[in-house]
Amino acid sequence: MTSIAQLDANSTPQAVRKAAREGSLTGPTSGLASGYVQVNLVILPESQAAGFLRFCQANPKPCPLLAVSEPGARTCTLLGRDLDIARDVPAYRIYRHGHVSDTRTDVAEDWRDDLVTFALGCSFTFEHALISAGLQVRHIDEARNVPMYNTSVPLTPAGGFGGNLVVSMRPFVAADAIRAIQITTRYPQVHGSPVHLGNPSLIGVADLSAPDYGDSVSVGENEVPVFWACGVTPQQVLIDSGIEFAITHSPGHMLVTDIPDNSLALF
Amino acid sequence: MTSIAQLDANSTPQAVRKAAREGSLTGPTSGLASGYVQVNLVILPESQAAGFLRFCQANPKPCPLLAVSEPGARTCTLLGRDLDIARDVPAYRIYRHGHVSDTRTDVAEDWRDDLVTFALGCSFTFEHALISAGLQVRHIDEARNVPMYNTSVPLTPAGGFGGNLVVSMRPFVAADAIRAIQITTRYPQVHGSPVHLGNPSLIGVADLSAPDYGDSVSVGENEVPVFWACGVTPQQVLIDSGIEFAITHSPGHMLVTDIPDNSLALF
Repeated sequence: MTSIAQLDANSTPQAVRKAAREGSLTGPTSGLASGYVQVNLVILPESQAAGFLRFCQANPKPCPLLAVSEPGARTCTLLGRDLDIARDVPAYRIYRHGHVSDTRTDVAEDWRDDLVTFALGCSFTFEHALISAGLQVRHIDEARNVPMYNTSVPLTPAGGFGGNLVVSMRPFVAADAIRAIQITTRYPQVHGSPVHLGNPSLIGVADLSAPDYGDSVSVGENEVPVFWACGVTPQQVLIDSGIEFAITHSPGHMLVTDIPDNSLALF
Repeated sequence: MTSIAQLDANSTPQAVRKAAREGSLTGPTSGLASGYVQVNLVILPESQAAGFLRFCQANPKPCPLLAVSEPGARTCTLLGRDLDIARDVPAYRIYRHGHVSDTRTDVAEDWRDDLVTFALGCSFTFEHALISAGLQVRHIDEARNVPMYNTSVPLTPAGGFGGNLVVSMRPFVAADAIRAIQITTRYPQVHGSPVHLGNPSLIGVADLSAPDYGDSVSVGENEVPVFWACGVTPQQVLIDSGIEFAITHSPGHMLVTDIPDNSLALF
């Protein structure tokens, strides 16, 4: 059995998935298998899947679709080889009637033949690109989770789903904010360029120091808060829609794929 | 003789240059020969040229070099065919001992065998790209010159030249500011991406409503001022350096080239 102590940035995606599958990895995946894409998962009954696909298509910034599985399939060759969607994530959330009813390390027993898996890009990929370019990412420097906020920005309703955008925030001095916009523009499949910068109240965020999810981080007087569409958006949308049954990863506990981060760069 | 009344956005670059050469066009070139690159000119004795070339190389954002002529040459095939550098600009400035001593519509009589011409990109090119993308450019909407400001941002001294950066400012709502950063990033040869956004005092600009050059424009409460390196920078540098002899175009009275704006897009 792979011990969690053996996992780090140099681990292969396969080793991380194996540790999750065997139950030795139940914590967050941030920092593991560096250089490989980690994805948000939304798993829905086929009856809801076509609607959710239309919703993602209409809202590509919060819901950038990397792959959609065949109904019932627990594999997805687009994401990786020897991959078990029901066991390779360290922690799952199960939703019933619009509430998170359970958190599990394995959903093999909950699996159904009609479940369709949506893999959505995650900002870890563009954060690696920002750091590679020499930028400082505040929540990483401060060893916190990224601050995330509910906004007043409406999503485009589609397929029976809707709600408001959730954003993540990273503060930068202006020159670095400009550079961060350039770099994240190259990665549309992991939320892409920011959706807002500057005055938070213009998107309905009243207090930067009180995030709705994650942790607060320090913001310097000479810094500009920069806001990106966030992968928490679809989880909030599932709750708001009162979904009868769904499974997602637990925030921060992502599926580690075999896709190299750099392969998602547009140019 | 080409009458100025005949010149407009649909004029060819050749027709605009011919009108300037014949003396019928003595006004600004903004809006003429749409889709073709207009350039800033800096014309220096060969003894200063190598130093100025090093200065441009060290400061590519304010001084993006498109072409450098051979000493004494009044033609430059990189910029256009049938082109006379000494006559094809509607208005020139002559500098003596660090001061603008004359404004001329023709510098053929001032020409010297040792003069080297530097053609620097101009923001007109990226403004066309912004407008094509559906953005509103405030000073154009308000029929004014772009507001420009001296800053406290030091240039990289090189070749005996130095000073502070001059910037132009265009206000946008945040989403359009992000889009403007993406679009201008594609055009490094015409100043490229912005150098600053947000709080003007961080770059030494005390009052947006009091530009050092050009006109003030309205800035909405929900807008972010976005600052680009400006082609006025080298003219200010010539003055600050106390240059013995130089010729430039008169601000706004550019050399219209045969280079299509779109040919300068990186991607």
